[in-house]
Amino acid sequence: MAQSIEALDILAEQFNKLEGVGRKSAMRMAYAVLDMPKEEAERFAQAILEAKIKIHRCPVCQNLTDQDICPICTDPARDRSVICVVADPKAVNAMEKVREYRGVYHVLGGLISPLAGVTPEDLKLRELVNRVADGSVKEVIIATNPTIEGETTSRYLSKLLKPFGVNVTRLAYGIPVGADLEYADEVTLTRALMGRQIVDD
Amino acid sequence: MAQSIEALDILAEQFNKLEGVGRKSAMRMAYAVLDMPKEEAERFAQAILEAKIKIHRCPVCQNLTDQDICPICTDPARDRSVICVVADPKAVNAMEKVREYRGVYHVLGGLISPLAGVTPEDLKLRELVNRVADGSVKEVIIATNPTIEGETTSRYLSKLLKPFGVNVTRLAYGIPVGADLEYADEVTLTRALMGRQIVDD
Repeated sequence: MAQSIEALDILAEQFNKLEGVGRKSAMRMAYAVLDMPKEEAERFAQAILEAKIKIHRCPVCQNLTDQDICPICTDPARDRSVICVVADPKAVNAMEKVREYRGVYHVLGGLISPLAGVTPEDLKLRELVNRVADGSVKEVIIATNPTIEGETTSRYLSKLLKPFGVNVTRLAYGIPVGADLEYADEVTLTRALMGRQIVDD
Repeated sequence: MAQSIEALDILAEQFNKLEGVGRKSAMRMAYAVLDMPKEEAERFAQAILEAKIKIHRCPVCQNLTDQDICPICTDPARDRSVICVVADPKAVNAMEKVREYRGVYHVLGGLISPLAGVTPEDLKLRELVNRVADGSVKEVIIATNPTIEGETTSRYLSKLLKPFGVNVTRLAYGIPVGADLEYADEVTLTRALMGRQIVDD
């Protein structure tokens, strides 16, 4: 029987809850924390608490921010008539590497997935409809991952936004099918943006 | 320019400091923390602090424990005349899976590595010598990884302990050379224990 230390197991369990961290990696991370000087571990714990306290969703685009309204939404140089719709904040960072894009964003907070139990009600769709409904938006670019969930969400959005007479486009399939937007290189993302298509429904 | 949020970057930096966690993984983990309910993030921070407060080194074997003396050192069924010397607490857990081993342990807290600047003074060697010097120890089994650092440490220990007339043995090379003890399967570890050899110096 391997020796078990409760406080170590509890810490490893916390690491294990993070996306993509397996049991073995989690235990290694817990040991790494024990190897840290006490002050360093305290800084780590503090960083977790401060991130949760300081960071919240931008009330306009739903992206993460530590300000009242995020820097992209308040930037006067951005074109508010074009909204790029993404699943999560990581996708905003990926898109921001494409310097050609000067519009704003809308972060859905996920994708429609019947298998995972994510329904349209779980996404920030009402907030998007409100932005589009005020009449100043000309185009909504859907930049969800090219997966079943991404496609389902794209089609749902196209139908949802049609009554408002806005152009709904979709990033071109320059992105390798089945891949994650976060790992696409800048050239691929730029091409996908340039070749974007009207969404048929 | 990708958007940067200070509290998020600080948190990602903390994850990045953990062994084996790259920059991209660290950022994913930081996002995962933001996705947690507030109470869950608080439990995470608390787990880090409690692990550091509750867990310390056993004054006898130097392994990690949340008790005054660790459960292995206080177990009356363990044979105190055989000490298995390992680099770190993870190796104790690996060895404990070998049910044939009923001796005790000594955790060095590292391996001699001139390249990494780890000298014999950085390891818990004086504590090991004190245990061997009291005369009740018959055998010291060196169970360091079969790497250059492990071999260097093994030869150093053999010379250090020779004056005390104790048998110094080394796990047999059943362990694949260059591998990590933590990932060895139980059968391989058992064979390595059975085929252990006297260390020549």
